[in-house]
Amino acid sequence: MPTQLEQARQGRVTPVMETVAGAERVSAETVRAETAAGRAVLFANPRHCVSRPAVVGRAFRAKVNANIGRSPERSSVEEEMEKMLVALAAGADAVMDLSVGPDLASLRRTLLAACPVPLGTVPIYEAFARVGNDIGRLNAGILLEVVVEQAEQGVDFMTLHAGLLRAHMPPAIRRTMGIVSRGGAILARWMAQNERENPLFDRWDDVLAICRRHDVTVSLGDGLRPGCLADASDAAQFAELDTLGTLVRRCRDAGVQVMVEGPGHIPFGQIPMNVEREQRVCDGAPFYVLGPVVTDIAPGYDHITSSIGATMAAFYGAALLCYVTPAEHLGLPTPADVRAGVVAYRIAAHAADVARGLPGAREADDAMAQARMRFDWERQFTLAIDDETARALYEKARAANRDTRPEYCSMCGKDFCAVRASRELAGK
Amino acid sequence: MPTQLEQARQGRVTPVMETVAGAERVSAETVRAETAAGRAVLFANPRHCVSRPAVVGRAFRAKVNANIGRSPERSSVEEEMEKMLVALAAGADAVMDLSVGPDLASLRRTLLAACPVPLGTVPIYEAFARVGNDIGRLNAGILLEVVVEQAEQGVDFMTLHAGLLRAHMPPAIRRTMGIVSRGGAILARWMAQNERENPLFDRWDDVLAICRRHDVTVSLGDGLRPGCLADASDAAQFAELDTLGTLVRRCRDAGVQVMVEGPGHIPFGQIPMNVEREQRVCDGAPFYVLGPVVTDIAPGYDHITSSIGATMAAFYGAALLCYVTPAEHLGLPTPADVRAGVVAYRIAAHAADVARGLPGAREADDAMAQARMRFDWERQFTLAIDDETARALYEKARAANRDTRPEYCSMCGKDFCAVRASRELAGK
Repeated sequence: MPTQLEQARQGRVTPVMETVAGAERVSAETVRAETAAGRAVLFANPRHCVSRPAVVGRAFRAKVNANIGRSPERSSVEEEMEKMLVALAAGADAVMDLSVGPDLASLRRTLLAACPVPLGTVPIYEAFARVGNDIGRLNAGILLEVVVEQAEQGVDFMTLHAGLLRAHMPPAIRRTMGIVSRGGAILARWMAQNERENPLFDRWDDVLAICRRHDVTVSLGDGLRPGCLADASDAAQFAELDTLGTLVRRCRDAGVQVMVEGPGHIPFGQIPMNVEREQRVCDGAPFYVLGPVVTDIAPGYDHITSSIGATMAAFYGAALLCYVTPAEHLGLPTPADVRAGVVAYRIAAHAADVARGLPGAREADDAMAQARMRFDWERQFTLAIDDETARALYEKARAANRDTRPEYCSMCGKDFCAVRASRELAGK
Repeated sequence: MPTQLEQARQGRVTPVMETVAGAERVSAETVRAETAAGRAVLFANPRHCVSRPAVVGRAFRAKVNANIGRSPERSSVEEEMEKMLVALAAGADAVMDLSVGPDLASLRRTLLAACPVPLGTVPIYEAFARVGNDIGRLNAGILLEVVVEQAEQGVDFMTLHAGLLRAHMPPAIRRTMGIVSRGGAILARWMAQNERENPLFDRWDDVLAICRRHDVTVSLGDGLRPGCLADASDAAQFAELDTLGTLVRRCRDAGVQVMVEGPGHIPFGQIPMNVEREQRVCDGAPFYVLGPVVTDIAPGYDHITSSIGATMAAFYGAALLCYVTPAEHLGLPTPADVRAGVVAYRIAAHAADVARGLPGAREADDAMAQARMRFDWERQFTLAIDDETARALYEKARAANRDTRPEYCSMCGKDFCAVRASRELAGK
């Protein structure tokens, strides 16, 4: 069966294009055209039944990805399932299972069966686990074997760090933080130990044949994303990006859908340049950014530092925002951290959608303003990105009030209520 | 005694200029020159002893203001004192007491005595309370009386909505959210009821004489700040801004320090234009922004929606950021909300400082990166904007680990630790 990209090029509007067009308030033809041009991807591995599909591209609403996954240090199938359900309930558009350790296939099968949105993975984690975390035993054959198995299981998109080359190592190693990508670090160690090129790069045509067969979208990993502001926008990062640009073209030639991963830790003012550079170097392939985090000194609040960066990135055209949770740099996130991360990123994505003037993006904001003018609290909660939290804060504040009538909140009370004054002045 | 502005114009470097220059890592002459030009203000009412003074201007670090204050509906002196101390501990550069209701002078005396940073107020709140919240009894004499009393108490800066004119009312009333400024709404009702011009505007020279005498910095209030995205950047907002521009010049002519308040609720992409317009219309007077909030649909998270906007505003030159707490639009903030608001705004201010390349701004970030490479957790907590929260999250995650050695965190564990791999590759 042809991939969504191939069908789009043939002028065919697929069912998934129809579905996402409705949610985006654009024509299915727009979705087809953007997909055909490679400016959008439609995660659609036929083996995974997705009831909430997503189109990822700068012409459409910015999407939010939530990472979950076990570490060798903690967590169980039950906990990861809980995190996934929390992320979905909070409104994540896609989920990545970044689990490492043993029994990944069975965990993934459980997650895929329960996941109504596209699910992504990083196959090198499973390959590394399969050789007992022993770099010496890792090889291209095992990597390809894992890619096939995960594709057959129904994984919709895969991070593949194929653009990390031996030539990039010297500038990467001299950096303040070196390599902070787990997958990138494994490949760097492999290349150093074997004195050979990145096996994913060497066997790229074989990787593409698998992705083509299962319509797995390639997410070109940024193994050299900067891990701190000091390393942002440096030679190592952009050398890898240039390689990713050549790999984008090879994906497209093979009929494989592709997006490109981006940083990381970037000063706020460098974000527009980073997005524009990716779009230029990678011929408009959708940009999938992790944050970026805009300061290194706020551990415990990286959902905030990075939602600031993510808003800027999405405003300039990043299409998929990978959340960062409050636990980043400190430990594995809990379900509560997952929720906080997804909400912060839905704010970032929506703020950028509104700023870009996407069709209908501001309707909920306008409805909220009208509900505020009417003191219609129930409607406000319905419209809220997180109705539960809004309601809880309101109820708590109201309970502490002297006057608990719903027309006034505890911020100003009746006599100082500007909304009440405005209604009177307008004769409403 | 001449104001800081007058002394700066006379070429005199004052002790407070010396003090803030050290913290900003610039020469005292730079502080003097920026103050003389009106591009910076130095809050310095001689009656308030401030041990942590602040210079506010686009040449310097962005500063954070925390609003506290009683509402008629709840709160006590003790609770407001607690909020102030929480805000100070979290790193607020200035505090505004927005209390309404009776006994404001005694509350303010208590706060001022305990406040080592500049403290601001909105005098119309006290004037309104003094007439029993009865618009019919409010007049210019009472307003001036309150301004004098607060100046004599030691208030460092005052929000005065003098730019809100009768001519601005028709476009303001037609808006989706009308007037959302409490002070603006009181004045609008007064003008409507009395069919007279804004008393603060009418008696502006008298106001300035008081501010000149006590070196109170005027913060020109934006009574017509948009209260929702639908009202952003509209005719009412910019008509008031034009009036504020004329008032800035009158302040400077009178030797009075002045800054200008700004929105509010603004789509992310309109923020640069808003900052640049204020700078142009108001001859570079420091811009003091509330947020802006970049989407209306996230009640419960407006510290995040607005720290996104505040970063953008500060990056383009806003000098003072008024925090917004998670309770915004829902109720009066608790001490925990105050803390969350200040931390989010310190992130915004710092991210903008780093992006603007201010002297030394990135040093803490670079030190954090180095501490991360060394697995030096104690140093990371010391450098963190909120060390307590960072430490608590780390300890919690670590306690759940199988391997609790400090060299690995629960995100990746030993074998998947990219930092460890990077150190080995670099031979460190």
